[in-house]
Amino acid sequence: MIQLETLHKISYGLYIVTSGDINEGNGFVSNTVFQVTSQPQRFAVCCNKDNYTASLIQQHKAFAVSILAQDASSELIGKFGYKSGREIDKMTDVKVIFRETNVPIVVDDSLAFLECKLVDVFDVGTHWIFIGELVCAEIIDEKSEPLTYAYYREVKKGFSPKNAPTYINQSKLETKTENVMSKKFKCAVCGYIYDEAEEKVKFSDLPEDWVCPVCGSEKSDFIEIS
Amino acid sequence: MIQLETLHKISYGLYIVTSGDINEGNGFVSNTVFQVTSQPQRFAVCCNKDNYTASLIQQHKAFAVSILAQDASSELIGKFGYKSGREIDKMTDVKVIFRETNVPIVVDDSLAFLECKLVDVFDVGTHWIFIGELVCAEIIDEKSEPLTYAYYREVKKGFSPKNAPTYINQSKLETKTENVMSKKFKCAVCGYIYDEAEEKVKFSDLPEDWVCPVCGSEKSDFIEIS
Repeated sequence: MIQLETLHKISYGLYIVTSGDINEGNGFVSNTVFQVTSQPQRFAVCCNKDNYTASLIQQHKAFAVSILAQDASSELIGKFGYKSGREIDKMTDVKVIFRETNVPIVVDDSLAFLECKLVDVFDVGTHWIFIGELVCAEIIDEKSEPLTYAYYREVKKGFSPKNAPTYINQSKLETKTENVMSKKFKCAVCGYIYDEAEEKVKFSDLPEDWVCPVCGSEKSDFIEIS
Repeated sequence: MIQLETLHKISYGLYIVTSGDINEGNGFVSNTVFQVTSQPQRFAVCCNKDNYTASLIQQHKAFAVSILAQDASSELIGKFGYKSGREIDKMTDVKVIFRETNVPIVVDDSLAFLECKLVDVFDVGTHWIFIGELVCAEIIDEKSEPLTYAYYREVKKGFSPKNAPTYINQSKLETKTENVMSKKFKCAVCGYIYDEAEEKVKFSDLPEDWVCPVCGSEKSDFIEIS
């Protein structure tokens, strides 16, 4: 027996993993960053093979991990988590800094960062596991709490993008008891579902400048699904 | 620059990873369990090469992950986290169940578990990364919150055992400003430090049945260090 809800009991943080250089940089939102050895200090990052950042990490032999703060904006998470660097330049209007390896490090909405030199790559099917050796680690903001994936899901109502290791097809999890009087609207960018029954506000009554709480897309990006 | 405090901003859960069979079972406390792919559902577990459980996982080609609840006892964490299965039978007095692969699954103090067949092993130096394909996942207790490593560190005052990927030599982190009037006592089993200045209670005034809040060892297992 496999109860899908079990998978939501695993604890993760939320990070922006970046690579490239000052001319061409990119990043993606990851929840699978973790230390694998302490001597030397090595970290693993799991990355979908289709991600543009995956090719940059292999080319530049380095990556950075920005540890998102609990109050990180939906716009930043939406930009790095639900859009492709092949279509937009994600680094525009984002504050980045450079340290040891010359990969761009995102500092917006982040409380700390790690920078690693790539030392190994493992193939786990649809994803790579990149192993990096720590070359730089700095705290940016002492006071903020790290954003956890549980907080993002429960408080910010976010869920995994299609390319994430933890992606679950939402249609399998949607509630079976529907309120026939209320409607649901789905964000075409990230898949977030606005449920009138749950929110107690009609979608049409939301202000025109309302944005998707998960990815920051506009109201016009929503499609009625029920 | 490497600021060690940065490493504490990475979010983890806490788990008991087990392997073996009904005759010979063992397990260890891990904070590095994470999903790596969703199609198929595969999980990674990082394990010190010296751990007895590492050899059992390779021999039995399977492992289980029990997801600890927030109120998990210090005794259970102490037994699985700070003692070796080469010296004691950790499965004595612990409730275990068996599902698809016949590895023992710890259900005490756990809210859910995963069971995986071993599909790959990667060498990351002092540790292995075991990759398992999910064959069983069940919720045991719907109501409990998962124990996170941050909660364990901040509320339960625990820290990484020597074999953990996230181990930091505590002497590097100890406070520089010492209260000359107060003393410190270190648990010889897990390394937890009882600091009279912080606790506001003299160690000698603690009741004789007081136990280490991290690993459950007795008061007599503590050694004065300052």
